[in-house]
Amino acid sequence: MPNDFAKRLQALSKTSAFNQLIGLEVTDAAEGYAELSLRWRDEFGQYAGFLHAGLVAALIDTACGFSAATMIPQVLASHFSVNCLRPAVAEVFIVRGKVVKPGRRQFFTSGELYADTVSEKTLLATGETILMVID
Amino acid sequence: MPNDFAKRLQALSKTSAFNQLIGLEVTDAAEGYAELSLRWRDEFGQYAGFLHAGLVAALIDTACGFSAATMIPQVLASHFSVNCLRPAVAEVFIVRGKVVKPGRRQFFTSGELYADTVSEKTLLATGETILMVID
Amino acid sequence: MPNDFAKRLQALSKTSAFNQLIGLEVTDAAEGYAELSLRWRDEFGQYAGFLHAGLVAALIDTACGFSAATMIPQVLASHFSVNCLRPAVAEVFIVRGKVVKPGRRQFFTSGELYADTVSEKTLLATGETILMVID
Amino acid sequence: MPNDFAKRLQALSKTSAFNQLIGLEVTDAAEGYAELSLRWRDEFGQYAGFLHAGLVAALIDTACGFSAATMIPQVLASHFSVNCLRPAVAEVFIVRGKVVKPGRRQFFTSGELYADTVSEKTLLATGETILMVID
Repeated sequence: MPNDFAKRLQALSKTSAFNQLIGLEVTDAAEGYAELSLRWRDEFGQYAGFLHAGLVAALIDTACGFSAATMIPQVLASHFSVNCLRPAVAEVFIVRGKVVKPGRRQFFTSGELYADTVSEKTLLATGETILMVID
Repeated sequence: MPNDFAKRLQALSKTSAFNQLIGLEVTDAAEGYAELSLRWRDEFGQYAGFLHAGLVAALIDTACGFSAATMIPQVLASHFSVNCLRPAVAEVFIVRGKVVKPGRRQFFTSGELYADTVSEKTLLATGETILMVID
Repeated sequence: MPNDFAKRLQALSKTSAFNQLIGLEVTDAAEGYAELSLRWRDEFGQYAGFLHAGLVAALIDTACGFSAATMIPQVLASHFSVNCLRPAVAEVFIVRGKVVKPGRRQFFTSGELYADTVSEKTLLATGETILMVID
Repeated sequence: MPNDFAKRLQALSKTSAFNQLIGLEVTDAAEGYAELSLRWRDEFGQYAGFLHAGLVAALIDTACGFSAATMIPQVLASHFSVNCLRPAVAEVFIVRGKVVKPGRRQFFTSGELYADTVSEKTLLATGETILMVID
């Protein structure tokens, strides 16, 4: 059963048309933390058949933003970056975001993308997001 | 009429299922340079109705990668970052990528995303990509 | 003769003890723009004798911050990144910063570091800085 | 007593003139890990008296590079970024770097900078570095 944080993020995700388009799912959450998953579809590939960098970014950015959304109603990304450690190949992509430093004006968050299971060996990408707090 | 660089990138884009899914189009190219456009669809929105950060990243990453693809057969992104300057709202998004520094082992590229027309006032996001050359 | 922008930045630079320690000089400025230079000293080297990455960052961060300081009294860096394109070797390092997007709450800036003269071939590093406006 | 990794890094740090200039010290190391410290001096300040961003970068970049140097003889930074979470004020700055993903051609590393003691509350800055392996 999803906890209250997860339920709130699931409702939030429903308001994002793109999250619905790709079938992104909220699987876990806590204060300052969010986990989501995305099932692979062939239409998600880049030229070599790996998950498109835009989707890697979408996953990390959403997990980061959702981790902040457990602590504050409205934020907007002002910066994000992604490091691609391994080819993004999986049946199910698991992404985790957490708040590194909340603030009155900005939140610093970080994210990790995994293939199928969460382990050091399956870590596909890392990233971070700076979010502006919307008054 | 598209030039030879643009024709080659159009063919390359056809091999990316995700580029086809979202309807990304190559509109111009030269050595070390690529321009693409994306027409807004409601299904591209995040919670506030702006273009989803994943699609902002997809546009910048693809324009950067394609600018390198005019100079070298195969590259893979190892890092990319995006700065979100203004809310990503447009009927047609225009994105330009260019090679800042080619190399034997890595390419440095940068990209700019615009709303509808290209001007300082319509600059929505900037970004950069580091691409590894695949032997 | 330095213009008023340059004079103001020279006065600002005098208030930074580290800028004085390394001998950083403001050489030009305009609204949203700053150029600085640093003469090589042996004590600036990393293990291979190139300019230490910390000094590469100091140059880019200062040029970016000073470009914003021509437009607004007080800012603080919340994020910066640097791409190292070529080994940082020069007798005189020239660094230029400019404001990409000013804002009420944050400034986006970018910088370029050159060896001895300003040209595409002597571009050593590029970088960017996100600055928070201090009320 | 420093272990063998720390001794090797201390010898490496002696070959960096800038590390000597600022008095950077290697305090701990393990495979894929390095910890360094820097004692505050007034000459390290920026205009507001905080540690200059260039030195924040120098600390994070060196800790990251040294963490990789425990695993591989020669690397060169191709990219680094820093997030400034809190004003960089301390008597002694402690910085830790670790290898996130080693590779044949590049190493991904991350770093954390603390004020005086290591804790969530004293985390001043986070950063990351991409290092190219030199053949």
